[in-house]
Amino acid sequence: MKLISFDDYQIGVLTDENKVIEITELLPNLPEELRSFRMLTLIERWDTLQPLIKEHIKSKQPVDLDSVNLIAPVPAPRKVYAQPSNYKAHSEEMQASPWSGSAPQISSEQGMFLKASSSVSGPNDPILLPYSDRVIHHESELVMIMGKGGSMIPAEQALDHVFGYTCGLDMTVRGPEDRSKRKSFDSFAPIGSYIITADEISDPQSLEINLWVNEELRQHAFTKDMIVDCKNQIANMSWVARMEPGDLIFTGTPEGVGPVAPGDLVTINISEVGELSARAKARY
Amino acid sequence: MKLISFDDYQIGVLTDENKVIEITELLPNLPEELRSFRMLTLIERWDTLQPLIKEHIKSKQPVDLDSVNLIAPVPAPRKVYAQPSNYKAHSEEMQASPWSGSAPQISSEQGMFLKASSSVSGPNDPILLPYSDRVIHHESELVMIMGKGGSMIPAEQALDHVFGYTCGLDMTVRGPEDRSKRKSFDSFAPIGSYIITADEISDPQSLEINLWVNEELRQHAFTKDMIVDCKNQIANMSWVARMEPGDLIFTGTPEGVGPVAPGDLVTINISEVGELSARAKARY
Repeated sequence: MKLISFDDYQIGVLTDENKVIEITELLPNLPEELRSFRMLTLIERWDTLQPLIKEHIKSKQPVDLDSVNLIAPVPAPRKVYAQPSNYKAHSEEMQASPWSGSAPQISSEQGMFLKASSSVSGPNDPILLPYSDRVIHHESELVMIMGKGGSMIPAEQALDHVFGYTCGLDMTVRGPEDRSKRKSFDSFAPIGSYIITADEISDPQSLEINLWVNEELRQHAFTKDMIVDCKNQIANMSWVARMEPGDLIFTGTPEGVGPVAPGDLVTINISEVGELSARAKARY
Repeated sequence: MKLISFDDYQIGVLTDENKVIEITELLPNLPEELRSFRMLTLIERWDTLQPLIKEHIKSKQPVDLDSVNLIAPVPAPRKVYAQPSNYKAHSEEMQASPWSGSAPQISSEQGMFLKASSSVSGPNDPILLPYSDRVIHHESELVMIMGKGGSMIPAEQALDHVFGYTCGLDMTVRGPEDRSKRKSFDSFAPIGSYIITADEISDPQSLEINLWVNEELRQHAFTKDMIVDCKNQIANMSWVARMEPGDLIFTGTPEGVGPVAPGDLVTINISEVGELSARAKARY
């Protein structure tokens, strides 16, 4: 199933005909200030909701995708984990770059880092570039959306905890500051356009990632080449910080990262998962 | 006013006689899976709630503090910002330590880092030590709780955005991994015991911090010695990631950090703000 968030945090199913059926009414009422968490209630209640949703969409008239404003499918996750330098060729390009520090460059030794949950943005939001005089890179990444939470989840069971997948851009300012700062600017975690539920992805290590800036193909890679695979990322990260429903995991970027300038259209496509485009603009 | 969270995310006022008056009924009903966010609704609605609370507590019979189980006053913030190496003497002790990396050691150049929101714990929760063979340090810190959100908040207006203050421990594994990993283990951000609202703190730069491990005084410092003061932390951090109601800011630790072992009782006291004790134990 493909799930979207739109307009004022409403939730819908995206049909095979690319139409939208709203399912917000199946979810609990929320006070206005907590509506951005609505997708978390869907994920939490998925086992009981799924049959109700299937019944609901039979009787509803879909609307055109163009008639809604897509926002990030999980607009307000509790946490955004990310895996650093997780493809060998990217790890090498970073080590050869002027931004290489003294920290370990091996993904499994760095463990993980965090991005601010407020950096999440959607397919219709611009990527806001906060500096005109510093290098800001695109990083194309497969993003996992956690379903069942848990602490110290064993790798063998880890994929059972995944609710779904989506495309993500881990936007990054290069430089000496803490990574969790350089990657946490508002709009530095575009995700979408929708969640594809985990039952539709046979193997997250068999996907192909492509990223274009305007017409230029910049990144082209296969998730089989991750240094730490998806299930071991969940095991490692949940060993540190317990996972909660709706948490996002950015699974690391392959080689080919490069600069983004105002006006650039950045497009990521992941086979079986979907596509996301976002346009960069100067913040000022 | 002193505000607490207790039991199953209920909220109360702590009276001058150290008694508790519950005010949960003044807040919107929430589905079970979002109840940990209840304090965020209080903070969001504070301007309209405050007179109602004052009326409410006049007519209610307080209960003994012992009869409730205190939890973290903000159990589930959207974000936990932190300021690195923010006292000169601590910055020097870290530069002289084996854990000093090549990253800039000047607090204002590092900007900020993030801790996982799930690392927040309360005064009755143990500090769980995940390693027996690595150094884990206490860092005593004044914690700001944001009231009004905002992006690029000017320093001159920044303190108007603070909802209140509390005591915090920024527990830290020393080592080469990313800082946002080493500081994000479950229970690595004890806060409490209560929020003191900002109107009761005349100047956050005029406070005294003391931290004891068991009977030994380890940290003793004054917030006037911060390198980046509270208002400039808000300005700098909100320039990166917009602030949201209930976000926490750990304002940096002074000199005297040291190891914590299973069984240790760690106590932080901040003048005018309050006190928090938490006992360390091995996670296994």
